[in-house]
Amino acid sequence: MNQLSHDTLQKEALGKVREKMATDGLGSLVVTDLSVVFWLTGFSGSSAWLLITPERFLLFTDSRYQEQAAGEARMAEIVIARNGFEAEIASGAYDLGGVSGIQSESISWKRALLLCNELGDTIRAVPVASFFEDLRMVKNGIELQRMQRAVSISEQVLEKVLPMIGTDTTELDIAAEISYQHKMLGAEGDSFEPIVASGPRAAMPHARPTSARFLPGELIVIDIGCSYEGYASDQTRTVAFGRASGEARRIYGIVEEAQQLGVDSARCGMSSTELDAVVREHIARSGYGKEFSHSLGHGVGIDVHEEPRISSRSSRILEEHMVFTIEPGIYLPGRFGVRIEDTVVLRRDGAHPFQRFTKQLLEL
Amino acid sequence: MNQLSHDTLQKEALGKVREKMATDGLGSLVVTDLSVVFWLTGFSGSSAWLLITPERFLLFTDSRYQEQAAGEARMAEIVIARNGFEAEIASGAYDLGGVSGIQSESISWKRALLLCNELGDTIRAVPVASFFEDLRMVKNGIELQRMQRAVSISEQVLEKVLPMIGTDTTELDIAAEISYQHKMLGAEGDSFEPIVASGPRAAMPHARPTSARFLPGELIVIDIGCSYEGYASDQTRTVAFGRASGEARRIYGIVEEAQQLGVDSARCGMSSTELDAVVREHIARSGYGKEFSHSLGHGVGIDVHEEPRISSRSSRILEEHMVFTIEPGIYLPGRFGVRIEDTVVLRRDGAHPFQRFTKQLLEL
Repeated sequence: MNQLSHDTLQKEALGKVREKMATDGLGSLVVTDLSVVFWLTGFSGSSAWLLITPERFLLFTDSRYQEQAAGEARMAEIVIARNGFEAEIASGAYDLGGVSGIQSESISWKRALLLCNELGDTIRAVPVASFFEDLRMVKNGIELQRMQRAVSISEQVLEKVLPMIGTDTTELDIAAEISYQHKMLGAEGDSFEPIVASGPRAAMPHARPTSARFLPGELIVIDIGCSYEGYASDQTRTVAFGRASGEARRIYGIVEEAQQLGVDSARCGMSSTELDAVVREHIARSGYGKEFSHSLGHGVGIDVHEEPRISSRSSRILEEHMVFTIEPGIYLPGRFGVRIEDTVVLRRDGAHPFQRFTKQLLEL
Repeated sequence: MNQLSHDTLQKEALGKVREKMATDGLGSLVVTDLSVVFWLTGFSGSSAWLLITPERFLLFTDSRYQEQAAGEARMAEIVIARNGFEAEIASGAYDLGGVSGIQSESISWKRALLLCNELGDTIRAVPVASFFEDLRMVKNGIELQRMQRAVSISEQVLEKVLPMIGTDTTELDIAAEISYQHKMLGAEGDSFEPIVASGPRAAMPHARPTSARFLPGELIVIDIGCSYEGYASDQTRTVAFGRASGEARRIYGIVEEAQQLGVDSARCGMSSTELDAVVREHIARSGYGKEFSHSLGHGVGIDVHEEPRISSRSSRILEEHMVFTIEPGIYLPGRFGVRIEDTVVLRRDGAHPFQRFTKQLLEL
């Protein structure tokens, strides 16, 4: 990674945040979400808030992270807040500009009450929600590189674990191996608990791995991701253990077509709802509309689920350099399920999947 | 596990919660912390609130968890809240009794504002903090069994990974193997990211594993834990790779003595501060008071860090069936560090460590 260009990109992001603060009439902004702290500073510790004013950019953390913060958050002033972040912000050492926005999705009610109390009557603390989504949805070159790397690691992991699937291994064995290989191949770890769901459990979109062994003829949904330098990957492949039934192959084909249709249809300027509808209607025409029971996809970045949601209930307009999943599925409760998922980056000429792994049905 | 006796214990806990609600003048209580949801119901999904009234006991979750909630939370009425938990609570379907306590540490400010808004003027919503700590600190027989099992799994894992430490393995290799083995031996997973810190990194109490290889003569701090049926283990051993220096052995001896003194000194009726002081003073007398830079320990249960904190700043009185760590350490920055940690259950005759693994210095 080129540290200089990374600093430049973080500076650009900070500039946009300050513009939006001015537009919204905020004299200062308190960031309480660790994902936003990481996005703006690179700090990856587990305890930090940011204070942003037109003049200053401060990171509050505790003494455990003194060294790490200095190394990672090079653009921010580091403050070790010995009496708590709330007291530090209200200490009078910072010009809060009358109205201070407090990121309200990621501060507890308890801490918000404490902060408001510390600030007293002179500063008006206002809850601020959905402030960063618009800015974070559009990725820069360094973010895209990290996500490509995260995807490549998960694809190597998938290559490694598929040959381990046999009659004497369980879903839990494969899931544990996936987590292990993510770390061994250079990721920080899983970006979410791996889903390895076979047979009837493949019909549950959020199945947890069990101690069930694989049975010949079953479909297996494998939904995995890792985090590399703070950025997530997310992908799903469905494979057959042995020969799949005719019905399973037919349904696999419908999902495969639908997923490809999603990739081929995504365009800048299109709404999330439209993209969701294109794929949903294809599956409905094939007779399985009700069995596609979740939304088409979601944004991916520092968080494995972020904006833009690709759903019938989202009004987001898709833009260049947004990154999101396209993951249709068909689930037949008690029987089997199929889901195929790529993470794509949207460019002017359409959606480009990060994934290279085949989407044809593999029969192991 | 005996499901019947588990139900009985959950019923007892619920009874105590209702008593405390009455004492505090709360007509109803909204539980927003998933650890408390699990403690009171056994539900282990990622989205749930509880509503407790003198008459009713409700679990709100979303449609993904319909089946799981019915299986796990057998004592509660399950409600799939399609318009959000806030709207459901304020729907008029429940008698909130005028004053409703809202657990304020674990609800975001944004959702608290939404809930208060939905409740309107007829119900007074009051933030409630530190409501459950007193009740959760004292463990019942089933909780102690699960914690013993979690500890046994981590001890088996430690046995397995120590022989893998060599000049061609890294901290990250060992950490990944620990996570893998936790799962393979029947745990849900790590209860926290394993710490495997060698040489100068062992002097950082919260070091993250790196790609550094082990060097002969180094001390290695291994701090690990797993979760079994929802309950955590936590333990630390420090080992030497090859022969330790005379200084390292001397400091190891001080920590070993201090830790044993902590185990031997804990008594029902003693304050946390006293127990912390006994160990701290022993280390100070040996000349390393400043190098023992954190508190003596913390409670363990569903959360790997919970009450009682064993610290100079805690006024908790230790009681029978509390479970907490005793984990003194000495850290020489830039050089090396030693920490030894057991998790103990306090009984009438004193503290009983769950751990059986030797605390003598192993030279690998």
